[in-house]
Amino acid sequence: MSIGIAIRRFSVRGCIGLAAAMLCALLLRATAEAQTVPLPSWNDGPAKQAIISFVKDVTDKSGNKFVDPEDRIATFDQDGTLWVEQPLYTQAMFALDRIHELAPDHPEWKQREPFRAILAGDRAALAKFSESDWEVIVAATHTGMSTESFENIVKQWIANAKDPRFHRRYTELIYKPMLEVMEFLRANGFKTYIVTGGGQEFVRAYSHRIYGIPREKVVGSSVVAKYEYQNGRPVLMRDPKVFFIDDRAGKPVGINLFIGKQPRAAFGNSTGDQQMLEWTQAGAGARLMMLVLHDDAKREYAYGPAAGLPNSKIGTFTDALMNEAHRNGWVVISMKRDWKQIFEFDK
Amino acid sequence: MSIGIAIRRFSVRGCIGLAAAMLCALLLRATAEAQTVPLPSWNDGPAKQAIISFVKDVTDKSGNKFVDPEDRIATFDQDGTLWVEQPLYTQAMFALDRIHELAPDHPEWKQREPFRAILAGDRAALAKFSESDWEVIVAATHTGMSTESFENIVKQWIANAKDPRFHRRYTELIYKPMLEVMEFLRANGFKTYIVTGGGQEFVRAYSHRIYGIPREKVVGSSVVAKYEYQNGRPVLMRDPKVFFIDDRAGKPVGINLFIGKQPRAAFGNSTGDQQMLEWTQAGAGARLMMLVLHDDAKREYAYGPAAGLPNSKIGTFTDALMNEAHRNGWVVISMKRDWKQIFEFDK
Repeated sequence: MSIGIAIRRFSVRGCIGLAAAMLCALLLRATAEAQTVPLPSWNDGPAKQAIISFVKDVTDKSGNKFVDPEDRIATFDQDGTLWVEQPLYTQAMFALDRIHELAPDHPEWKQREPFRAILAGDRAALAKFSESDWEVIVAATHTGMSTESFENIVKQWIANAKDPRFHRRYTELIYKPMLEVMEFLRANGFKTYIVTGGGQEFVRAYSHRIYGIPREKVVGSSVVAKYEYQNGRPVLMRDPKVFFIDDRAGKPVGINLFIGKQPRAAFGNSTGDQQMLEWTQAGAGARLMMLVLHDDAKREYAYGPAAGLPNSKIGTFTDALMNEAHRNGWVVISMKRDWKQIFEFDK
Repeated sequence: MSIGIAIRRFSVRGCIGLAAAMLCALLLRATAEAQTVPLPSWNDGPAKQAIISFVKDVTDKSGNKFVDPEDRIATFDQDGTLWVEQPLYTQAMFALDRIHELAPDHPEWKQREPFRAILAGDRAALAKFSESDWEVIVAATHTGMSTESFENIVKQWIANAKDPRFHRRYTELIYKPMLEVMEFLRANGFKTYIVTGGGQEFVRAYSHRIYGIPREKVVGSSVVAKYEYQNGRPVLMRDPKVFFIDDRAGKPVGINLFIGKQPRAAFGNSTGDQQMLEWTQAGAGARLMMLVLHDDAKREYAYGPAAGLPNSKIGTFTDALMNEAHRNGWVVISMKRDWKQIFEFDK
């Protein structure tokens, strides 16, 4: 083949390729536009507007706030931000259920705290559990097995256990408006991560199924894992020793460790998320920091400053955090005003 | 608009969309096929064949070894697997250079080991450095600054420093055949990760540029990072304390922590990679485990069993590892026989 013919062939091919690609792109855009009425469960207002403006800014190639898709990172706290955290964190519910399940093998627990209080259903004692009580409970329920066994235990529990108030599976208690935010961000080139104080391997057992977030995008707290051989087969055993606490100042540390980039958007609901939002805001360019305020006692719960309640042990949206939010321009989401619908089942 | 018209419009659009998409797909496939003569720097032989067969197996939807794209994970050791690790790890070269650079601020180093030996160029002493000597060196050169400052220091060094034998930048000393493996795997839906005993934040400073591996896909060793405020701005400070050692049994732990899935393919070159290969093989279905053997003194180096050399401190491809490779069916890559070309510059 002469070079002339080769070139002509190439340009004809290139032309068909280009035309087809442009046609595809146009059609895809039309479809995307037709399908996307973003955030349908959100009422119009400053919170919804903040999300939409932010996404518009970072995806507008001609604007000065454009962000390379590679740097579009969004991080989400889980408990109280993506799903219900009352009356206790779901993972705490799991631990308590598991103590009951394991009790027959541990007759000594009937006399030993904190197990006694759990087995006796002593709510007053339970409400006063200290950090070290919880450490004992986590060690007894979350360690001493392989990572594989632990995941199976969590999967089985979460497929069956039900929340005491709504009588629904915990995985049904995720906030529809937040799912929409994650989907909207992903549709606009964002990588969405969970950054939780909860157990990384606990959340991984269901994150893909319920949030569309794959295992490698779950950053959380962890125990030490030990590589061992069982009958010649390698396993990772979960040791009763804390490896990493992904909470408060641990969240920026975890983000740096697992993602290696400062997020462009971060969503939380408590003092445990404060440093994550600060760290997000510390980078240059467009940034979005949001906090979910639980102010809807009827459809969900009201606690923290919204309810004029004293800080509970969980979900501490303190007055100090509210002040920091105002000072820094973080957007507070009112569940009551901003969310048309909270749960999928809640029509 | 009547429903009838709406439906007709939809199907016309759908038709154009489908035709364009098919045309695109065909053209893309033709282009891909034309471009893809995989692994051009590899000689034909069992190593090249093993890679090609494995990829064929896991991507063949009709076969029983098909692997969902989501589970196509491949992990690569870095030093001695992706680039040269002799006469010292590149990161050790960085540390030594940095000691020289920082020396004017530390007059006491002239009298204090291990600094004295480095500053005096005492190679005999340097060759005998213990683990704790290296810890002192790492603390002095890798910590006490923010993650941001550290990255800038590494970037500047690696843009300029040259290897003593080849007189090339370290980033030119990457193995072309291994780059081709990474590209071939990625083209077939794999996610490629670096899993290195070296410093995670050291490798992140250049991994995207030279390997096409983004920051979040670098798993490595790390020091403790501390969240602090400097002039009201949050920073992560690198503390002189080990957080995680991603080597030997640490590699499966790191893989579980950062990826959360067992790899389908793993590539290493030393006892530091043994457990990563075991862990890869421990899963069900098609798996590929490969070890790079340094047996080409002329074009690169010959050490370990290939050279009949005693185990050096680095790159320990021991006889025991060779035996395990044979026993487990791991494929050994002979740099001498399997690689047509080692470096990009090496024509």
